[in-house]
Amino acid sequence: MGDVAAAPSIEGVACFPLREIPTEGGSVLHMLRSDAPHFQQFGEIYFSECLPGAVKAWKRHTRMTQNFAVPVGRIRVVIYDDRPDSPTRGTTAEHVLGRPDAYQLLRIPPMVWYGFTAEGDVTGIICNCADMAHVPDESERIEADAAHIPYCWPELSRR
Amino acid sequence: MGDVAAAPSIEGVACFPLREIPTEGGSVLHMLRSDAPHFQQFGEIYFSECLPGAVKAWKRHTRMTQNFAVPVGRIRVVIYDDRPDSPTRGTTAEHVLGRPDAYQLLRIPPMVWYGFTAEGDVTGIICNCADMAHVPDESERIEADAAHIPYCWPELSRR
Repeated sequence: MGDVAAAPSIEGVACFPLREIPTEGGSVLHMLRSDAPHFQQFGEIYFSECLPGAVKAWKRHTRMTQNFAVPVGRIRVVIYDDRPDSPTRGTTAEHVLGRPDAYQLLRIPPMVWYGFTAEGDVTGIICNCADMAHVPDESERIEADAAHIPYCWPELSRR
Repeated sequence: MGDVAAAPSIEGVACFPLREIPTEGGSVLHMLRSDAPHFQQFGEIYFSECLPGAVKAWKRHTRMTQNFAVPVGRIRVVIYDDRPDSPTRGTTAEHVLGRPDAYQLLRIPPMVWYGFTAEGDVTGIICNCADMAHVPDESERIEADAAHIPYCWPELSRR
């Protein structure tokens, strides 16, 4: 409730720590409450599975803000900011999400490029609690090796 | 959007089919949208992990409606209805949730007892999109072998 976002590397991106509560039968893992200071609006919740070696990139939304948590596996999310008016234009940021040491909520604003891959050999699951429900034509995709994004996915060359 | 709930075995319990959309890098798994006919209200989203052999039972909420989906593993959810005014009073129902054939949203109303266990040898993850945020004193717990609930968890005797 009193969680403070980590210093964002890209304007509008924020990380909020999340609690994992161990119990004998398995952990309870917090994600997002409607009374949290950083809660905005509920639009849709869905999962995206990421198989080892796969790269899901690049994508950007024109209106949707995303809130990612990774309850299973470890995922590296990469964000690239090419918004003309952004103070962090040109910045690329990596965020690793996953238990036990990096279980957190990652907020991604509209109009930045993002992509993700599983870290290691374990399938990862991203849960996205977005502020609007999916609609066609609200997002765009480009290839993971798109030349104008200065990030090289090592996973692509390992195939 | 046009999903129809399966005939409920217990008054107020409902199952809604969910889509799994396979892609090369891993599936996208729907859960709940704010414009779905069966969406009520967003309160909190969290995960509950269930380790193989563990039984998390029994619990009931006095006000919270829960919406369960299982993106990882397979979970057997058991519900027992002892509400005095319920037309299905005395009924016990089992629901198995999980991919690939039983990926669905299970709605559990307040005031019924429920519990769950992992099916098989794989850890399962329940995602709960509840209609209110967690508050203390809104739920009660009793032991998994409580005498007044006519359901025997086979997992308890295997320990």
